[in-house]
Amino acid sequence: MTILFCSDSEPPGPWRLACARAFPRMAFRTWPDTGARDEIRYALVWQQPPGSLAGLPNLKAILVLGAGVDAVLSDAALPADVPVLRLVDAGLPGPMAEYALYAVLHFQRRMADYFQQQRAALWRRREEMLARQWRVGVMGLGVIGATVARRIAAQGFPVAGWSRSGKSVEGVEVHAGTAGLDPFLARSRVLVNVLPLTSQTRGILGGRTFAAMPRGGYVVNIGRGAHVVDADLIAALDSGQLAGAMLDVFEQEPLPVAHPFWRHPAIIVTPHVAAPTLASESESQVVENIRRLERGEPPLGVVDRDRGY
Amino acid sequence: MTILFCSDSEPPGPWRLACARAFPRMAFRTWPDTGARDEIRYALVWQQPPGSLAGLPNLKAILVLGAGVDAVLSDAALPADVPVLRLVDAGLPGPMAEYALYAVLHFQRRMADYFQQQRAALWRRREEMLARQWRVGVMGLGVIGATVARRIAAQGFPVAGWSRSGKSVEGVEVHAGTAGLDPFLARSRVLVNVLPLTSQTRGILGGRTFAAMPRGGYVVNIGRGAHVVDADLIAALDSGQLAGAMLDVFEQEPLPVAHPFWRHPAIIVTPHVAAPTLASESESQVVENIRRLERGEPPLGVVDRDRGY
Repeated sequence: MTILFCSDSEPPGPWRLACARAFPRMAFRTWPDTGARDEIRYALVWQQPPGSLAGLPNLKAILVLGAGVDAVLSDAALPADVPVLRLVDAGLPGPMAEYALYAVLHFQRRMADYFQQQRAALWRRREEMLARQWRVGVMGLGVIGATVARRIAAQGFPVAGWSRSGKSVEGVEVHAGTAGLDPFLARSRVLVNVLPLTSQTRGILGGRTFAAMPRGGYVVNIGRGAHVVDADLIAALDSGQLAGAMLDVFEQEPLPVAHPFWRHPAIIVTPHVAAPTLASESESQVVENIRRLERGEPPLGVVDRDRGY
Repeated sequence: MTILFCSDSEPPGPWRLACARAFPRMAFRTWPDTGARDEIRYALVWQQPPGSLAGLPNLKAILVLGAGVDAVLSDAALPADVPVLRLVDAGLPGPMAEYALYAVLHFQRRMADYFQQQRAALWRRREEMLARQWRVGVMGLGVIGATVARRIAAQGFPVAGWSRSGKSVEGVEVHAGTAGLDPFLARSRVLVNVLPLTSQTRGILGGRTFAAMPRGGYVVNIGRGAHVVDADLIAALDSGQLAGAMLDVFEQEPLPVAHPFWRHPAIIVTPHVAAPTLASESESQVVENIRRLERGEPPLGVVDRDRGY
């Protein structure tokens, strides 16, 4: 019985160690060194080489080593009848909330102005607004989005959330579906995106959305790069409709050196660090899922392929 | 009956308005235009000109328009037998906590590195630590310090507090007095100072304190400038004992253009903006105290002049 590690971008070492500890009698192999293909029962994947999961007759589950599954699902050769499991927590929500909260505080407290003033040894207080005057909207209310919303609300910011189904989160004003989007945007001075990437959400951070926000708003993207229409974001910043953006994810990563985001004065670029997606925190969840499958129990985080998350 | 406004650095306008609304039958005068000195019953003060409160025979209370009273008490001509009242909340704790939390997140999430990398269009993930591995120490556990400690703890950081008396704060490990200082410092990777300035705390952010912290620590000062021994801070940063500092208060404000803090690469300077000390939030508390005194009730925030806060 074999666990196959399948990633072009992540090191297998920590996972080999975790699996050896938890499943000492299973083999651990790294694609393309698959060994006997009919021995492979579980695949641990992150940005797998397209086609690498085809032709594995006894594959029982595809365990994604992160919360976002859009890259995994985009593989045309992905076996259709094998369940895809994603991380549902694994230590992601806390760091994501930290990043979002940092961005909100950075904008609300005018920190970019103060950093710039320091370079000129300039002592000047900027007009500030209290947290309660600074309304934040969180798009996406899964485990991550709910934590992001609650943590920002805990600092005194009025927080609303928006999702397809409109699930409720304590202390957060919830808007749902297509009809709920415009009222949600109209009240959100800072928009924090943690949506999954699906055909419905691709490009959602575009001109129409920015125009529905209050003038001078801010955008924080910790979802996926393809949520953003890059040219629309730059246009909204240049026109003053948006005042700033903090972006952690990009359609192409690493963000190409020539991309205008790097040098735009109102954009903060970070290199996909909002959450350490593959940290040791996620190991226990992957191990737990393999254990459940071995015992014949239902696994956690089963992805609905049609919905896309 | 007259209220005298006495400040070299703050505009009287908002206070004149608040007093006219709350006490329409009292006169409002601005030093040095005192009118009949025996009419003056209340003095609203912030960095008053030394001697300006002498010779007011019917002064019933000195109402300080902030939480820190060190500047007021340093006036040798301050009437000895008139109670000094300070703001005990007035919306200060929330903004102070925001500032401190921003500083902690900025250091923990390596944001200075990412800002610098962006200038070079450099995509490189820095090693990060989880909040729970990043221990924060808050010096001073009054209303402000307790809020700062609780708000940082709410984001998953292990927080300890230190104060003279060691009052307890939920979810915060408390150390007390001289004996408790070294164990407190030894565990604190980030030190947040919100102490009042007294003869005991002056210079407390000096070489001895920095040396007792873990190597590579951080200092956040939102107390008073005179808590910091400037040369010791620079020496600790230059030796690597400290890795960074975020400072909002300075012995001389505005911080002189030639001061080395402005240009030190590991120091963030902000122009005393951690809390809007004189915001409308504080008006209701000053008004409430005058009302209490007019009704013969005990006021709030009575300063112990010997203790210094």
